Amino acid sequence: MKAEIVAVGTELLLGQVVDTNSAEIAQGLAELGIDCYFQTHVGDNPLRLAAVLGQALVRSDVVIVTGGLGPTEDDLTKEALAAVAGKRLQLHPEALAQVRGYFERLGREMPENNLRQAMIPEGAEILPNRVGTAPGVYLKVHGAHVFCLPGVPGEMRAMWKEEVAPRLSRLAGGPSVILSKTLRFYGIGESALEERVKDLLHGENPTVAPYASVGEVRLRITAKADSPGEAARIIEPVEREIRSRAGRFLYGEGDDTLERVAGRLLRERGKKLAVAESCTGGLITHRITNVPGSSDYLRQGWVVYSNEAKVEQLGVRPETLARHGAVSEPVAAEMAQGALQRSGADLAVAVTGIAGPGGGTEEKPVGTVCFALATPGGTRTWTARFAGSREEIKWRSASEALNLVRLALLEERETP
Amino acid sequence: MKAEIVAVGTELLLGQVVDTNSAEIAQGLAELGIDCYFQTHVGDNPLRLAAVLGQALVRSDVVIVTGGLGPTEDDLTKEALAAVAGKRLQLHPEALAQVRGYFERLGREMPENNLRQAMIPEGAEILPNRVGTAPGVYLKVHGAHVFCLPGVPGEMRAMWKEEVAPRLSRLAGGPSVILSKTLRFYGIGESALEERVKDLLHGENPTVAPYASVGEVRLRITAKADSPGEAARIIEPVEREIRSRAGRFLYGEGDDTLERVAGRLLRERGKKLAVAESCTGGLITHRITNVPGSSDYLRQGWVVYSNEAKVEQLGVRPETLARHGAVSEPVAAEMAQGALQRSGADLAVAVTGIAGPGGGTEEKPVGTVCFALATPGGTRTWTARFAGSREEIKWRSASEALNLVRLALLEERETP
Repeated sequence: MKAEIVAVGTELLLGQVVDTNSAEIAQGLAELGIDCYFQTHVGDNPLRLAAVLGQALVRSDVVIVTGGLGPTEDDLTKEALAAVAGKRLQLHPEALAQVRGYFERLGREMPENNLRQAMIPEGAEILPNRVGTAPGVYLKVHGAHVFCLPGVPGEMRAMWKEEVAPRLSRLAGGPSVILSKTLRFYGIGESALEERVKDLLHGENPTVAPYASVGEVRLRITAKADSPGEAARIIEPVEREIRSRAGRFLYGEGDDTLERVAGRLLRERGKKLAVAESCTGGLITHRITNVPGSSDYLRQGWVVYSNEAKVEQLGVRPETLARHGAVSEPVAAEMAQGALQRSGADLAVAVTGIAGPGGGTEEKPVGTVCFALATPGGTRTWTARFAGSREEIKWRSASEALNLVRLALLEERETP
Repeated sequence: MKAEIVAVGTELLLGQVVDTNSAEIAQGLAELGIDCYFQTHVGDNPLRLAAVLGQALVRSDVVIVTGGLGPTEDDLTKEALAAVAGKRLQLHPEALAQVRGYFERLGREMPENNLRQAMIPEGAEILPNRVGTAPGVYLKVHGAHVFCLPGVPGEMRAMWKEEVAPRLSRLAGGPSVILSKTLRFYGIGESALEERVKDLLHGENPTVAPYASVGEVRLRITAKADSPGEAARIIEPVEREIRSRAGRFLYGEGDDTLERVAGRLLRERGKKLAVAESCTGGLITHRITNVPGSSDYLRQGWVVYSNEAKVEQLGVRPETLARHGAVSEPVAAEMAQGALQRSGADLAVAVTGIAGPGGGTEEKPVGTVCFALATPGGTRTWTARFAGSREEIKWRSASEALNLVRLALLEERETP
């Protein structure tokens, strides 16, 4: 089966909006093993939209259309599809009930415009929209399967997952349930991780696909089955195998982030954290406090960018600064110890480094970052060297600090 | 003139990369007054790529292609273009000199593969690449103007601005220089700003276009002229008029951010800043320290998420907390005063609020944020209410704090 994607909207042609829907749908098609050969952006223009749809119907077996299902005169996707298919639009009672239901749940009157959203090409099925107003449309035209989805990313995503992906899997002769699970890794590069699991990357069910972003790698396991339970059973042994091979590099799954995982461990252990930041400049506490409820375990943060602040606020000794320099493990250690004592927290992490672009030396180039983790039991230090822009070095340093907190809490749990 | 954009790359069809190039180029076309009717993603496949290029050449006057100019066997854009145009690829001496020059500047040997990047369809012009290795290509085919640019966004952007936009302006019968200037506004909504300048939004040269993002609005003024000097003279009176109408809402231009502008003012005035953060959780100092050289003026930051930390680290009085609550102007004031005294800075900004999703009350709903700005001359406080997710409320609160610093420094400068 060959698929293509058509994203509709004049805002795309004017460059006011970046199309992320096509990439998400393309990932979904790849997971289903369906080739996607073309992606097109076209405006809310009846002739050009019909031309693009007509071409797509001729050259592809599956056409996924996003956008143009709204309530205004500019929303023409269904009109163009009906024209190309030689069908009429008609009021679809079930679609109308769904649109009305959406407004009823909000406790609002349905504007008359929204009647348009219940006009569906004859012979089409509607795809329920759990998130917004516009129902989607499924129509088979001249042997091609056309799915029209809303352009709002959250609505598109839900409808893709709940309605479109299962149908496509069946059309492709596969089972109707597609289940994905993402595992997240820190501290191991994409190729090193692939090396560890390479025999698992060529399976057909489940498939395992790697993705990399700044400072982390993900593996996405996708299974197809006739029931969610069966899909979970297909994923389970592969996940267990990956977990056993990845060890401590695996930090979480799904929507986990290092800050969420570290926060969860802090909460479980009833521990309070203090943070002393120099080169990360507040990014560590910013990330920690992006997690709702983080006030339960974040005791205190310091941003001690200057030497004076390190001395006055955290008790770093001037002679340590003079002897080793601000970017050094001894200074990181005294920062962490100072933060621990002054905050009354159970553990403290400290970071001092050179984020660049200036400030590097031959001995300590840009990207040199020293870390310390202090607990009442002692202090450990560690130096890393990161590549990238100032913001990337800050990000990687913050990730490293959060991971140190995670690992320290994991170890503690395991030592009785 | 009708234009279309073709983005080449199998990674786009697999959804591994989101295409931002097409949106940037589309904005550039809109600024030139050239209609863009189609944008297509196609993979590194010779037949399909040729089919897409052939269709584009037939239906459009201008075709902008990005990607597929790299040194590997997968990079097929020039091959496909040559096939469609009925031309041969030949080694272009000037292109070869440019590719060689790139490696010489890096002090590296040119890999043999990179010879491919100097193969150009006969009759084509090359477009110099100031940023990377691959020269661009300009070819006129059957009356259509085809521009092939690299897919790497930084390389594409430089080549678009320096080579493509001026040529397109001339092709469109316009002058050869396009100059844009972006003005940045904080504290005024998009529609309120449009209201103030609406008579300026319908001009033809310069054009003025508004763009909005979280917590700020931009106006982009674009002039076409025969020389940079003339373009600047066309922009100047419109810019002056906008500046006079926008007053203090205009905080910067070009790549300015609130943190850069506040930092610039701190440096100019020789002032040191301290920051006391509760709900922003380190985001203010994170943004300040994203600016290189910020160690010159950032004295110290505190993240005092808990009541205890507010009391112990900044000297907030327990009775103030008890009487007014942690989210109150009196607490913000004591945080700022404590930060000022303990850091020895010249001014201190403090933020305490409810970022949500939990923690709101009827009297102080989620999004309620109190600010204080303390100097040796006194303390001012202020309460705002922001909408959005937890991260958006943090971002808007940080922007507000940075803007308060900016305004305080501006006022100071003006009072003799």
